[in-house]
Amino acid sequence: MFKINDNYLKLPGSYLFSTIGKKVAAFKEANPDKEVISLGIGDVTLPLAPAVIEAMHSAVDEMSRAETFRGYAPDLGYEFLRKAIAENDYRARGVEIELDEIFVSDGAKSDSGNIVDIFSQDNIIAVTDPVYPVYVDSNAMAGKTGEYLKEKECWSNVVYMPCVAENNFVPELPEKTPDIIYICCPNNPTGTALKREDLQRWVDFANEKKAVIIYDAAYEAYISEEDVPHSIYECDGAKTCAIEMRSFSKNAGFTGTRLGFTVVPKELTCQGTSLNSLWARRHGTKFNGAPYIIQRAGEAVYSEEGKAQTKEQIAYYMNNAKEIRSALTDMGYTVFGGVNAPYIWLRTPDGMKSWDFFDLLLEKASVVGTPGSGFGPSGEGYFRLTAFGSSENTRKALERIKKL
Amino acid sequence: MFKINDNYLKLPGSYLFSTIGKKVAAFKEANPDKEVISLGIGDVTLPLAPAVIEAMHSAVDEMSRAETFRGYAPDLGYEFLRKAIAENDYRARGVEIELDEIFVSDGAKSDSGNIVDIFSQDNIIAVTDPVYPVYVDSNAMAGKTGEYLKEKECWSNVVYMPCVAENNFVPELPEKTPDIIYICCPNNPTGTALKREDLQRWVDFANEKKAVIIYDAAYEAYISEEDVPHSIYECDGAKTCAIEMRSFSKNAGFTGTRLGFTVVPKELTCQGTSLNSLWARRHGTKFNGAPYIIQRAGEAVYSEEGKAQTKEQIAYYMNNAKEIRSALTDMGYTVFGGVNAPYIWLRTPDGMKSWDFFDLLLEKASVVGTPGSGFGPSGEGYFRLTAFGSSENTRKALERIKKL
Repeated sequence: MFKINDNYLKLPGSYLFSTIGKKVAAFKEANPDKEVISLGIGDVTLPLAPAVIEAMHSAVDEMSRAETFRGYAPDLGYEFLRKAIAENDYRARGVEIELDEIFVSDGAKSDSGNIVDIFSQDNIIAVTDPVYPVYVDSNAMAGKTGEYLKEKECWSNVVYMPCVAENNFVPELPEKTPDIIYICCPNNPTGTALKREDLQRWVDFANEKKAVIIYDAAYEAYISEEDVPHSIYECDGAKTCAIEMRSFSKNAGFTGTRLGFTVVPKELTCQGTSLNSLWARRHGTKFNGAPYIIQRAGEAVYSEEGKAQTKEQIAYYMNNAKEIRSALTDMGYTVFGGVNAPYIWLRTPDGMKSWDFFDLLLEKASVVGTPGSGFGPSGEGYFRLTAFGSSENTRKALERIKKL
Repeated sequence: MFKINDNYLKLPGSYLFSTIGKKVAAFKEANPDKEVISLGIGDVTLPLAPAVIEAMHSAVDEMSRAETFRGYAPDLGYEFLRKAIAENDYRARGVEIELDEIFVSDGAKSDSGNIVDIFSQDNIIAVTDPVYPVYVDSNAMAGKTGEYLKEKECWSNVVYMPCVAENNFVPELPEKTPDIIYICCPNNPTGTALKREDLQRWVDFANEKKAVIIYDAAYEAYISEEDVPHSIYECDGAKTCAIEMRSFSKNAGFTGTRLGFTVVPKELTCQGTSLNSLWARRHGTKFNGAPYIIQRAGEAVYSEEGKAQTKEQIAYYMNNAKEIRSALTDMGYTVFGGVNAPYIWLRTPDGMKSWDFFDLLLEKASVVGTPGSGFGPSGEGYFRLTAFGSSENTRKALERIKKL
């Protein structure tokens, strides 16, 4: 008789954004006349940049002719894309990454979920708290997190590193040494970012303890401050301890277009085995590449026009962030983030529970945000708004919140 | 100190098609003047159908305007695509599949590799031998196959079911009861297919033993014989024991476009837990949907024009299959397959080893095929050619083989 992976049964509730989706759908069905504004899931709203659109039309045309048709892509992704990545995301910032250290994928969510495959069962993971749910859930599914302690809303075998206003959202080095450390910077959900010296401290710690850092840099395009690194490889020694994940979802609006990549340096080894070779094996066996058309779209993001156009999109969203910060501050809210990231992290009023504030906002203002506690116990009492709405909707949402 | 998943270290060599790719690249570098014809990896060569191209252009245009732009897709895939699948792949053949039993993905390779996630560590898997390498490798990576026995070229904990000329390529019910049974039909690599009564026997066996069948139907569009089922759900009782995977790679030339889906019926349960809910959780946590543009491309495959155009492509490839079968037979080779599948499975001449015949064909004829032993021990002495070349190249390759 076959048996299921019963680690799945230990998972509490459903994936955060699925839950929100269901709540919103129910609200809409009950209130068909109300216009719901979502500043919730972190989905972009601006259309793809003209350079990207043009590249895709041209790639679609290539697929229509036998001479230019493309079948299976190279395992690691097309070289034209990996070259553009190495040049623009790394060399331009003084970091040398070899082409076979870059693995093109269908997005950072898949990669950050799948990366657990190459690590053994008995590693202890450390996550910032609050945290993007995929890191913990994917480890829980693989049986790497111990038992779920319902009353504490946490897993018995996970090192949680609180990031709260009191420590300025900078995680402290943990007492219990973890094996795998997840860092998302600029951070989702708090919208804050680590300065270079703070990140360097983590790199040094990982190298000293022989831990590996899974560095999620999906929001690096939003960095506005000089002393915030765009890549972990800007820190000394990071290539011997860090895997970096990037996404085109937020820097170029690819949430529905799907493209990302992961860098696994060859210097990153464990008892003589290179993690690069393990990830290459996984990538080659359980994945078959991102679509050619989409890889061409990704390449176009790095063209001169693409860079200028996506920079404008980011400026547009960051202007929303600024308006949200300023309007909420005027209303008396305490807000964080929104300077190096498209997320605003606010304290709920009067110590309200995060989900209560979610319900209040949905029911009274028809505005969707994300409850902080959905990202971990230290998120309780906080709430996330995203800057990804249209500026018109963002203003309208702020007006409605003001009237609460 | 972090530890890697050392199951990866047990894997023999590299993924079959990566090895072939490297051998071919080396040959081309050493022989830049020689034109290599690949009848190897099973990659299509015809451009995408006009209906698909048109749908993609139109979807790209939608992505260029804020009003029609699409961000994150629904977890299971867009309903327009799941409706077309339920209607055309199932209802048209008398099978009722609900929309939330269909999970759209980036392809059957990813799904067949990732499906291991939802099963426990201690299931015994059974595979036909020879077999598509992903089924075994993905289980090996998860530590579910025991030890690799080098001299026997097999895993200690896997039930191998030989499919050879002597049993007409129909696997016999195994003596040792497996928990998870992988069946690919029409079969890759042998190009043969199970008749309805043979498949029904497997469904009955699985229901009796409470085993689950992972049914890979990636090649169903090539079925030409009436008594070969297109879906396992055409068999009585399959919904309580089978997961079915489908791909757009071979029926519509999507190898570089990436789209597939998996059906997990809600009736398929294990101790009260529905596998549909487990896969939904995995899908929602570790995957973020196929690109909107590609899902529209998939929908177009089911339009009247799309169906007519892809049918023509399949007829084109199957004409190649016919020519390969007939030419090789005339040369004195013993050939199988090629009637319900785009693969021809031939016996190597004079009992040659499969890899020796691979080298011979590459070096003397500049033709690439796939060595049967790469698919498992019972593939030794066989060789796979695909019908996916252009008819011109296919004929040229056959001429060259004739001169060997």
